Amino acid sequence: MVPPHCNLRGEMPAMTEQQPKYRVPFVERTGMRTLAAEGGRAKLLMPLAGNENHVGVLYMGAYTVLAEAVAATPGITLCDPDRHFPIIKDLYVDFKRPATSDVTADYALSDEQLAALGADLERKGSAGYVAEFPILDTDGTEVCGARVTVKLLSKNWPPTDGNRAA
Amino acid sequence: MVPPHCNLRGEMPAMTEQQPKYRVPFVERTGMRTLAAEGGRAKLLMPLAGNENHVGVLYMGAYTVLAEAVAATPGITLCDPDRHFPIIKDLYVDFKRPATSDVTADYALSDEQLAALGADLERKGSAGYVAEFPILDTDGTEVCGARVTVKLLSKNWPPTDGNRAA
Repeated sequence: MVPPHCNLRGEMPAMTEQQPKYRVPFVERTGMRTLAAEGGRAKLLMPLAGNENHVGVLYMGAYTVLAEAVAATPGITLCDPDRHFPIIKDLYVDFKRPATSDVTADYALSDEQLAALGADLERKGSAGYVAEFPILDTDGTEVCGARVTVKLLSKNWPPTDGNRAA
Repeated sequence: MVPPHCNLRGEMPAMTEQQPKYRVPFVERTGMRTLAAEGGRAKLLMPLAGNENHVGVLYMGAYTVLAEAVAATPGITLCDPDRHFPIIKDLYVDFKRPATSDVTADYALSDEQLAALGADLERKGSAGYVAEFPILDTDGTEVCGARVTVKLLSKNWPPTDGNRAA
């Protein structure tokens, strides 16, 4: 079993009632903000200010922080923090243009995807999806493509009560 | 022409005489340290302290910062800062195990690779390589695989003096 690499930031207003707070200082230092997080959707913003590289455009690492949070947040909505945890399996970022503004990304799992993932998690103890989406500057130009493999895992799997389906 | 995304950190003791200082606050906040940087080789260390995720293992973003710097630093040795600049084209990290210690990575371009890249840079105005290497914990266990595409580009290419080779 792979313990969590995972890594989501604390501020997810739409989820704080049911979801655990994932506080990661590395992420908080970036100033990333949640624009929308409800149901299976997440839209987040990474500010340019404080995250510039040596020539004043957005630094590579800021893209990876944004990509991961946008990819994993929709799956987190399926997790019961007492029973499940998310991990990132891999992450790919493909730079298209330099960003001279804040950037955003938006990713959602459909109701059908959420249902299938939830069923996998109960039946097999694990579920996974590949989130692929663009990262956009404030003009709507794609500055980076992101692809992130997210896994949701059950703690203490297989269950020891003998009732697990084969 | 793609302006620089690039993103290397300031502290490269072996290069400060010839190389520009690439200061990126995002990188400096991680506390990443250079263990070796001479010729076409770079070995860097990413501390766990300050870069933990919410369960105390190394956060994903810290891997990407390390991977990029280790990949790009050997190529930077070919750059004349008045004439060339490095960019990162893409970056992939594949998580194998959680890291509960500092991590290091080590990458080198051979003399033959450096010569070929330098020749490309002069002849075509650009050169590129794919750096692939493991990221290791202090026990020497591979905790992550990294693959980074680095490009070296000439400023103001093609030259306007009419003497460029076809």
